[in-house]
Amino acid sequence: MASVETEHKTLDPKNHADWEVAQDAEKRMKTIYAIADEMGLTEKELLPYGHYMGKIDYRAVLKRLENKPNGKYINVTAITPTPLGEGKSTTTIGLVQGLGKRGKKSSAAIRQPSGGPTMGVKGSAAGGGRSQCIPLTPFSLGFTGDINSIMNAHNLAMVALTSRMQHERNYDDEKLEKLSGMKRLDIDSTRVEMGWVIDFCCQALRNVIIGIDGVNGQRDGYMMRSKFDIAVSSEVMAILAVAKDLRDLRERMSKIILAYDKKGNPLTTKDFEVDGAMTAWIVEAVNPNLIQTLEGQPVIVHAGPFANIAIGQSSIIADQVGLKLSEYHVTESGFGADIGYEKFWNLKCHYSGLKPDAAVVVATIRALKCHGGAPVPAPGKPLPEEYNTENVEWVAKGCDNLLHHVNIVKKSGVSPVVCINAFVTDTDAEIAKVRELCEAAGARVAVSRHWELGGEGALELADAVIAACEDETEFTPLYTWDMPARERIERVATEVYGADGVDYSVEALRKLKAIEADPKASELGMCMVKSHLSLSDIPTKKGVPTGWRLTIRDVLVFGGAGFFVPVAGAISLMPGTGSNPSFRRIDVDPDTGQVKGLF
Amino acid sequence: MASVETEHKTLDPKNHADWEVAQDAEKRMKTIYAIADEMGLTEKELLPYGHYMGKIDYRAVLKRLENKPNGKYINVTAITPTPLGEGKSTTTIGLVQGLGKRGKKSSAAIRQPSGGPTMGVKGSAAGGGRSQCIPLTPFSLGFTGDINSIMNAHNLAMVALTSRMQHERNYDDEKLEKLSGMKRLDIDSTRVEMGWVIDFCCQALRNVIIGIDGVNGQRDGYMMRSKFDIAVSSEVMAILAVAKDLRDLRERMSKIILAYDKKGNPLTTKDFEVDGAMTAWIVEAVNPNLIQTLEGQPVIVHAGPFANIAIGQSSIIADQVGLKLSEYHVTESGFGADIGYEKFWNLKCHYSGLKPDAAVVVATIRALKCHGGAPVPAPGKPLPEEYNTENVEWVAKGCDNLLHHVNIVKKSGVSPVVCINAFVTDTDAEIAKVRELCEAAGARVAVSRHWELGGEGALELADAVIAACEDETEFTPLYTWDMPARERIERVATEVYGADGVDYSVEALRKLKAIEADPKASELGMCMVKSHLSLSDIPTKKGVPTGWRLTIRDVLVFGGAGFFVPVAGAISLMPGTGSNPSFRRIDVDPDTGQVKGLF
Repeated sequence: MASVETEHKTLDPKNHADWEVAQDAEKRMKTIYAIADEMGLTEKELLPYGHYMGKIDYRAVLKRLENKPNGKYINVTAITPTPLGEGKSTTTIGLVQGLGKRGKKSSAAIRQPSGGPTMGVKGSAAGGGRSQCIPLTPFSLGFTGDINSIMNAHNLAMVALTSRMQHERNYDDEKLEKLSGMKRLDIDSTRVEMGWVIDFCCQALRNVIIGIDGVNGQRDGYMMRSKFDIAVSSEVMAILAVAKDLRDLRERMSKIILAYDKKGNPLTTKDFEVDGAMTAWIVEAVNPNLIQTLEGQPVIVHAGPFANIAIGQSSIIADQVGLKLSEYHVTESGFGADIGYEKFWNLKCHYSGLKPDAAVVVATIRALKCHGGAPVPAPGKPLPEEYNTENVEWVAKGCDNLLHHVNIVKKSGVSPVVCINAFVTDTDAEIAKVRELCEAAGARVAVSRHWELGGEGALELADAVIAACEDETEFTPLYTWDMPARERIERVATEVYGADGVDYSVEALRKLKAIEADPKASELGMCMVKSHLSLSDIPTKKGVPTGWRLTIRDVLVFGGAGFFVPVAGAISLMPGTGSNPSFRRIDVDPDTGQVKGLF
Repeated sequence: MASVETEHKTLDPKNHADWEVAQDAEKRMKTIYAIADEMGLTEKELLPYGHYMGKIDYRAVLKRLENKPNGKYINVTAITPTPLGEGKSTTTIGLVQGLGKRGKKSSAAIRQPSGGPTMGVKGSAAGGGRSQCIPLTPFSLGFTGDINSIMNAHNLAMVALTSRMQHERNYDDEKLEKLSGMKRLDIDSTRVEMGWVIDFCCQALRNVIIGIDGVNGQRDGYMMRSKFDIAVSSEVMAILAVAKDLRDLRERMSKIILAYDKKGNPLTTKDFEVDGAMTAWIVEAVNPNLIQTLEGQPVIVHAGPFANIAIGQSSIIADQVGLKLSEYHVTESGFGADIGYEKFWNLKCHYSGLKPDAAVVVATIRALKCHGGAPVPAPGKPLPEEYNTENVEWVAKGCDNLLHHVNIVKKSGVSPVVCINAFVTDTDAEIAKVRELCEAAGARVAVSRHWELGGEGALELADAVIAACEDETEFTPLYTWDMPARERIERVATEVYGADGVDYSVEALRKLKAIEADPKASELGMCMVKSHLSLSDIPTKKGVPTGWRLTIRDVLVFGGAGFFVPVAGAISLMPGTGSNPSFRRIDVDPDTGQVKGLF
């Protein structure tokens, strides 16, 4: 232990908060020039943002290394998380650090955190303990500006839509033509599909009425109902995640459906002549961001969609770059394997053409107890006493949920590695039980102490992953895109979530039939919106719920991102801010500029 | 002419659009490291953002050069502009280039452009012809992210306000205390002062109703009227412009008034415990940005408030840095001397303690004709024929407006230099008339061809400015802050705008009396909101309107920025997007990432 502390020169996370460990390590971190150089970037391919962050000119890298074979591709997923999270980012960083200790050139790809959770409940998405990425503060607060640029691109589409509705109401065809050479789009004001975005949790803007007042109603636009969603759920964010390059992104950007005309035809960003300008706003955001692990390895950060209400993956561009530059590239998918890994498997890899060599399923004894019957913990509240007391029975029962996720990975044809993300309160008997049950089910198991020890603590995990990458894989999609929409939904519901079947609202059914009747439907993927807190669509149902049916209440069409979005249960695309938000505890030292209280 | 083209290697603006001139020059521009080095920054003091933009660690610079005397301080202002603008940014850049040709170490400070005008009407705020700053595209589209960060800080305050209103309605005192340790603020929902911001021209969000729907109304906040203003009019933007350093900014950030309680007491960002987190969002934005002129001199870009609806100045921090590093530092104020220079004189310099050595009043023959009686030109329409035909009489008559602005500068105790920003259509007789009238009024006059020729064309202007900087100055404020609010308004109205007096709405009068009764009123400055298109509050009145009274219809209190804001006439803090917006013409080359059509 002492030797580890001396070698890393990092503070012991048992005695220090995450942000203290990070800020202390930041005093000795490598410059971004050194990180880029060690990673194999040329000077021109690194676009520095200050001395410790940067963007990667992906186009130059991919062109230069066109003929270089890819490294190994590892996905990190998890069991159904508790509301506290199970340390998936921590494990992603820890695994890269462990691979580094084994002499492997490795990199991580993670998502940029949203301002909503950061200001609302959680502070950081940078990992924890001795497995974090740094510098922590800029990463957590806007970073190099990508989410802001996406927000601007998205809201510019809404400016185009709402001002057009106003001008089409105020002027006849001749005047419109004379003023701007525009043809009437004849927008159906009852079928405006898109809303605005803001990157905070803001229930007050969830449902709004816009365009009120003005001189005879003519100055302030078209009075109508509208909405704000959180920016990370924007279709523009989804497009950044799935685009293979700028050309692909530019094409997708023209296909976003804003509304329908009075004949029922979709009206896109291209129809509103705003697709080019939207792309211009995110042309810098297309380059992935680069920071480092606490042990000085490259961490690529790009895109930030949540996995419950969006695609939940970092970008394809980030993975393409990481795979060219590393022997082992580790990419994280959001939340549990039911939603994050399923979308990695059937959407992200479909678009990218890439195939994973292994997948890590992260579990904690805490979450297993929760699935086994212990009281559900809540953020900001003390952990129930049950979590500090040995209870092998609950752990064993909770393994049902873990094995369900392991089987999802196996179904995709990939070797699963179960990672027990160890806590100091875990007992040997509890860990032995998990190992026994998982090995019996044919999964590799590693106990990992990367939170406590950094890369040295992740050697068992690194070795298991290296071994798993040598297994034969037969990566096969769960469904083909020529299947009818409902058949795809039903396959995911039954084979991945474990539902008995699917029920549809009248509205959802109408929309799904329209999709099925469209000959272009096979160009669309499927991206389910579902709670992350249960395998089912009811967040309180822990373990492996049985005897239930999935309810689809609405369906969205993301024409640019290229998928239809069945919305399960009562989930909202705009989270709320609670009565004890984390922004209360955040401040800045006015002399040094250092941000305090983020974590 | 040919020699100039060869020397600069820049394209001739008579044959090429501004963006073509800029993008061509960008192929040969200096790296930001070279610009910073030549400017006298150490390696650590430059925070690069890519290879051609950067931020300046102002704290390190000001500390290192604490005892170095400041360079000369020159303000660039203008006559009352036409809707097309009179080239104030172009002249600011041209003057710096001209000073450079005379061997003087010089720098410019300009404001970051807002996405509203860029996407709505105009494209660039980077100057024009051979007097521009580069790289143009990132400068015009989000730049290093400062405006976005300000938008986030501002909207976070609204998240705090609206979620608090909801929780205070849903819970009794005991429950509130238990949930979060919060005391009831007892917000008066009819006296919510602050709205949201977005950095586009978006009339549909000018007046909105928020917080509708939800489960029994409890989930989606407090239903009420609200508003969106353009981000550059945010009080947070004003604070960035006037703060002397981070400590000053942090203190101001806690004094922003969001609403009043039911007893009439102001409720600030500090009461909502969101002032620290707001500061955290803009801690990087406090560092000013650095780019270059077409001729390779430093251009500092920082803050972006408009001068008609806000303080209209680049930041005090930017000027402090420029003055330490240059022999001549040129800073621009928005629109005409009546609003931009008046606020520079009585607000910005009050806060900074700095005194200008000279002020340039920019005029064009086009604008003089407009003030003399020619038809008012409109953006996006062909220029009326009158502007291409010599008319000395109109020019002479229009000089009334120019001389009015020259006298505003003189009243401040500073030497004015009239700069005729020459167009190829100007005739010798027209220019001679302006020279004659201005010299008779005791002003230096320079004809400047920087648009056409760059620094070589601005030598006469540079020489006039160098001479003016040697004049004795007696820089004296127009009013002292212990004067009652209405007396200050009346002094600006009569002495600067030329009004006969001031009329107040009932609402404005009530608020002004409350300010006058407050013993702390002398801590507040005054920042007028008034049309930029006329000396009066009626945009169509050109020349020097006489026999009119200024109408104050409302008064805002910016407790953090530290001023009260009398609102004159019918101006709105949220501009609208017209029927032929400029975003229609913007696109991205999908292979190179180059943005086209911005200008």
